[in-house]
Amino acid sequence: MPGKRATRLTPDQRREQLIGIGLEMLADRSLDELSTDEVARRAGISRGLLFHYFDSKRDFYRAVVRAACDRFSAATEPDGGLEPVAWMRAFIAGFVAYVLEHRQVYLALVRGAAGSHPAVTDIVGETRETLARRLRDGQRRLGVPDVPRQELALRAWMAFAEEAVTTWPVDDSGDGAAGARDELCAFIEASFVGLLGLLDRPGRLTSR
Amino acid sequence: MPGKRATRLTPDQRREQLIGIGLEMLADRSLDELSTDEVARRAGISRGLLFHYFDSKRDFYRAVVRAACDRFSAATEPDGGLEPVAWMRAFIAGFVAYVLEHRQVYLALVRGAAGSHPAVTDIVGETRETLARRLRDGQRRLGVPDVPRQELALRAWMAFAEEAVTTWPVDDSGDGAAGARDELCAFIEASFVGLLGLLDRPGRLTSR
Repeated sequence: MPGKRATRLTPDQRREQLIGIGLEMLADRSLDELSTDEVARRAGISRGLLFHYFDSKRDFYRAVVRAACDRFSAATEPDGGLEPVAWMRAFIAGFVAYVLEHRQVYLALVRGAAGSHPAVTDIVGETRETLARRLRDGQRRLGVPDVPRQELALRAWMAFAEEAVTTWPVDDSGDGAAGARDELCAFIEASFVGLLGLLDRPGRLTSR
Repeated sequence: MPGKRATRLTPDQRREQLIGIGLEMLADRSLDELSTDEVARRAGISRGLLFHYFDSKRDFYRAVVRAACDRFSAATEPDGGLEPVAWMRAFIAGFVAYVLEHRQVYLALVRGAAGSHPAVTDIVGETRETLARRLRDGQRRLGVPDVPRQELALRAWMAFAEEAVTTWPVDDSGDGAAGARDELCAFIEASFVGLLGLLDRPGRLTSR
């Protein structure tokens, strides 16, 4: 393609381009299936040149996963000046929007094999920690006191929310997309309220 | 080992022995890392003889995963004659006991790479379906009506319960093991009650 030759990009732009291609490709394959040959080919450069920008395949994988996790962290960080309820809703909306838009990447990183890929476990782990921290922050803002087993309960709720968002039937191209997304946000909100209730007053089964 | 020679076992016993070794080995490795060479060595037979009992590596993997899933299904099936609340508690206790005792196998099959291993996805999928069916059954026994999004909510709750049980700090060798297990069962029960409440009357966030 004219104007797309390797020499036109600065090193930073080139790195960014290669990471972007890696992110796109993660949408339909696992980290192990992400071929650096294919990334170089799509960028129109040689494999050798790719390794001028990244020390190794591992280094490239880490850069791609780091970029995905940074975007996820940014998408789930509400404006600190919001009121507690609005803050928590912005957090939920950001989480839902990110996961819906990047469902495959999210699954590949968090639930799939990539999350346990030895090259990136630390980055994925840090990102889950960031998410857990935001939840604790939201809970504190809402004035909900800490209780025993809270950390574990919050992480179990994260698994609940991930499962709900990744399996919720949302067709982003359809007319009902906005309604389905609102319903999903309300469901996630209600489940978080339910979690707080569970920690506050654990229920026991009864027959109706 | 005397008395352990290949000729001493019937074909059924031999298959069972090899599957048992596979199950033991799954406790500390993924399905991909399960070497049939190592299985044969542990059984004291040749690799060739192993493939007399199983058509292929894939066939062996499927037999091992099928055995793990059958045990899981049996462990989570309460006596049909129990009262609704007792039935649901027996289901929860069976689930908790199985996952605590076979935590690594469970993680390898359900959350790890093995769950998405192409040779066994159907078996793991069927087993998740069995678990979801038991939950619907329990809900019906308790007299809780069906609501929209119930199936999705039940599956999200399964992710919650799995995360809670696999991360709950239970040291089975310690004195407090039984107490910790009871506390965990009560937590899972309370979260299920919370789920039913969520479906019944979805809450909205409020500041305290």
